[in-house]
Amino acid sequence: MLQKKSAVLVDGVILNGPIMDSKAGEKFVEEACKIIMEEVIQKADDVTEKVCEWQAPEKLKQILDLEMRDAGECHQKILQLCRDVIKYSVKTSRNGILSTVALHADLDRIMFTKYTYEVSPVFLLVEEAVIKKMIEFVGWEEGDGIFNPGGSVSNMYAMNLARYKFCPEIKEKGLSGLPRLVLFASEECHYSMKKAASFLGIGTENVYFIKTDERGKMIPEELEKQVQRARKEGSAPFLVCATAGTTVLGAFDPLDKIADICENHGLWLHVDASWGGSALISGKHRRLLHGIHRADSVAWNPHKMLLAGIQCCALLVKDNSGLLKKCYSAEAAYLFQQDKFYDVSYDTGDKSIQCSRRPDAFKFWLMWKALGTTGLEERVNRALALARYLVEEIKKREGFQLLLEPEYANVCFWYIPPSLRKMEDGPEFWQKLHQVAPIIKERMMKKGSMMLGYQPHWGKVNFFRQVVINPQASREDMDFLLDEIELLAKDL
Amino acid sequence: MLQKKSAVLVDGVILNGPIMDSKAGEKFVEEACKIIMEEVIQKADDVTEKVCEWQAPEKLKQILDLEMRDAGECHQKILQLCRDVIKYSVKTSRNGILSTVALHADLDRIMFTKYTYEVSPVFLLVEEAVIKKMIEFVGWEEGDGIFNPGGSVSNMYAMNLARYKFCPEIKEKGLSGLPRLVLFASEECHYSMKKAASFLGIGTENVYFIKTDERGKMIPEELEKQVQRARKEGSAPFLVCATAGTTVLGAFDPLDKIADICENHGLWLHVDASWGGSALISGKHRRLLHGIHRADSVAWNPHKMLLAGIQCCALLVKDNSGLLKKCYSAEAAYLFQQDKFYDVSYDTGDKSIQCSRRPDAFKFWLMWKALGTTGLEERVNRALALARYLVEEIKKREGFQLLLEPEYANVCFWYIPPSLRKMEDGPEFWQKLHQVAPIIKERMMKKGSMMLGYQPHWGKVNFFRQVVINPQASREDMDFLLDEIELLAKDL
Repeated sequence: MLQKKSAVLVDGVILNGPIMDSKAGEKFVEEACKIIMEEVIQKADDVTEKVCEWQAPEKLKQILDLEMRDAGECHQKILQLCRDVIKYSVKTSRNGILSTVALHADLDRIMFTKYTYEVSPVFLLVEEAVIKKMIEFVGWEEGDGIFNPGGSVSNMYAMNLARYKFCPEIKEKGLSGLPRLVLFASEECHYSMKKAASFLGIGTENVYFIKTDERGKMIPEELEKQVQRARKEGSAPFLVCATAGTTVLGAFDPLDKIADICENHGLWLHVDASWGGSALISGKHRRLLHGIHRADSVAWNPHKMLLAGIQCCALLVKDNSGLLKKCYSAEAAYLFQQDKFYDVSYDTGDKSIQCSRRPDAFKFWLMWKALGTTGLEERVNRALALARYLVEEIKKREGFQLLLEPEYANVCFWYIPPSLRKMEDGPEFWQKLHQVAPIIKERMMKKGSMMLGYQPHWGKVNFFRQVVINPQASREDMDFLLDEIELLAKDL
Repeated sequence: MLQKKSAVLVDGVILNGPIMDSKAGEKFVEEACKIIMEEVIQKADDVTEKVCEWQAPEKLKQILDLEMRDAGECHQKILQLCRDVIKYSVKTSRNGILSTVALHADLDRIMFTKYTYEVSPVFLLVEEAVIKKMIEFVGWEEGDGIFNPGGSVSNMYAMNLARYKFCPEIKEKGLSGLPRLVLFASEECHYSMKKAASFLGIGTENVYFIKTDERGKMIPEELEKQVQRARKEGSAPFLVCATAGTTVLGAFDPLDKIADICENHGLWLHVDASWGGSALISGKHRRLLHGIHRADSVAWNPHKMLLAGIQCCALLVKDNSGLLKKCYSAEAAYLFQQDKFYDVSYDTGDKSIQCSRRPDAFKFWLMWKALGTTGLEERVNRALALARYLVEEIKKREGFQLLLEPEYANVCFWYIPPSLRKMEDGPEFWQKLHQVAPIIKERMMKKGSMMLGYQPHWGKVNFFRQVVINPQASREDMDFLLDEIELLAKDL
């Protein structure tokens, strides 16, 4: 079939040109800034303005249109939502916080704290609504959750929660004198697992790394073996951390089979879907996470593929009996008084290891309102179609070599420059190839033409890894990427 | 002396009216937004724009005027700095991140990641410069540090670091089988100490709370006793967490005496100066933290009194031998390659428990550039003078009663409504008074006139706590606060 240059269709997605109207986007930002200037900054000194327009939680839920729907709303509706958010939020200007010099020009800094309903009425309801919606996509009937400053922190929360479930006494008594706790994660898991094990006093040696197959997926039989090994050693296995979308290869662990093993052994199943979780939004791609509804907890970062803006990371928990709060509470009398005049179950701050938190859920909520589930799904589908296009182009071009057929948006490949193409495969070839990516990277950085990461990985020499997520990126950008590598490396 | 209503002078500070020109502030925000719109948002789709204007670290330091000085710079200079920051930063638009719908209208989101120099050249240098300057104010000759998502997290970092210093093997082996680790903090310390002890696997029972005096300061003799008790029990004391500026009372622990005890017993001294640290900027008030230079680590949140905007929290560490990195590193091969073409000691991401971090130091840096050390000092002095004014007014007015003479900006007081003023002191009086603050709070929230916290504390019934930090607040606002309480409670 002859493809016209002007309409490249991959997986049902047209990949030419950007999908967003950037002029409309600019206009929206301008109008939103205007609202912030008028409603927040200019009114900051106005003593006749109310500190807040108080509403009880249930009433405020009715006033705000919190629900996230399939279809997106128009810009005018979104701007009205921004006005409502400002109206029903606490104005920290009167309360001592707003400082124009520090450039507080974004909506989510109007009210800086998020731990009790009285200081963050809107943002706590928004967080609740967003978590509920994310839980729906995970496939649980109910659950709990909290937004955190990063997927690494979400993974730590989950590890501590699993430990608390395993032995609640640890909260008070600590680990001293207990048998060695052991957890399992794939060799390809994110390095935050090691950081978490070290931070939580479990120790990095007590993370048992499970072998992966050639695509980077955890091998369930190997997990079974390691759990049994841990039991034989007399240690205490308590947690399996599966990964949905590994950092380097974009691999998805077989969640359903892993869930079987966890069930048999009574282990908590945490899924680090920080990167891969967004595929849940896509009817076409959510099969990558088949079995995720059986997890006990899930880390999912909408700031990655869905572009909700750093930081926007949720930890979702299947338990709905208050485990999260029981595990984390310190019951500070100065914040979480029980004699308040509203339903204090909305004071969610005690679920957190932080005190003040940024209202990170808000960005995602506003974006979801604007794009609708359909718009978010399009982002995922388009990103994966672009990755597919890139893979096919790499296969066609001389000198480019795929590391492996990707499942997700991570496209890993080597560029073999002209001087190495006739060389025999062997240690010398790979040693020379190892030096190629750093040189190309240096040249592209100094030229400023693009930015592309490289890394070695488990004995594989330095290769490039392109992760495509920008909804403004097009087929032409993918072509440019490959052309530019050829150009930068033609003398190598 | 007769005071004119138009010039109330307390501690050498004139407290009438705001100190900032809010019109100039608004104009600045408008111009900064314009730069962001033109240089970031509108250029996001321009494929002729460079991804970055690469400069090696030492060269970039020369180009950017990083130094924070005594005098502030004019708005035009600050706007030029903003342009430079954009120019030398990586544009994530081409790299796949910028999303206008998510309202990325603030400077510090242009480049979202902060873990390697290549992705965040400007922000890593800015963080380094800010930490260096903060260390200077602590009084160390050198040191290390990192910005964190909150003071609670900074305290956790310090606790883990002290533990690592005490026994580096814990990083790999964990706490299992080790003697019970014990740390010490005052009864008035922040609740994050308990959260940290629980999260880190130490256990909340192994935080030994030290008695405080009537002003809320840790009693050194009690600390000595508790350290000896822990030793006798066969446990392993490793850390003292002193507080500089407690949450409720604003008390400062006697750091110098505590440092003596730490030195004698070989204990790490951490100072939680999240709230009180900003007094270090003031020549007049830094004596509150006398002895802080003897600490091993300090948590200090410029987002509190200095109003750098949530979140802006540093952990500072006296050690300059790489302890922070040794303690936290996981050496992820995909990020921290050693074959890069620049000095990789600038890749500070491995010091963190997070992966991507928000560039929180930037706000504080820009603010410091704009206000100068002198301007920051004025903020502190003014806040404390306003607190002093409020205290004196409380003493003058009928029905108001101070809880204690404050050292810092926390003014704690009861309001005794007309019906209770003639009552005899006794359990019934206090029980009735306990119910007063919640009623006044409910009324002020529903009216929207102001927002003021209350809490019970160590057997003291509910009292109000006003913390004055807004540089726009004036003597008139303090008068309004007291008038309004009288008005809201006149029928009680």
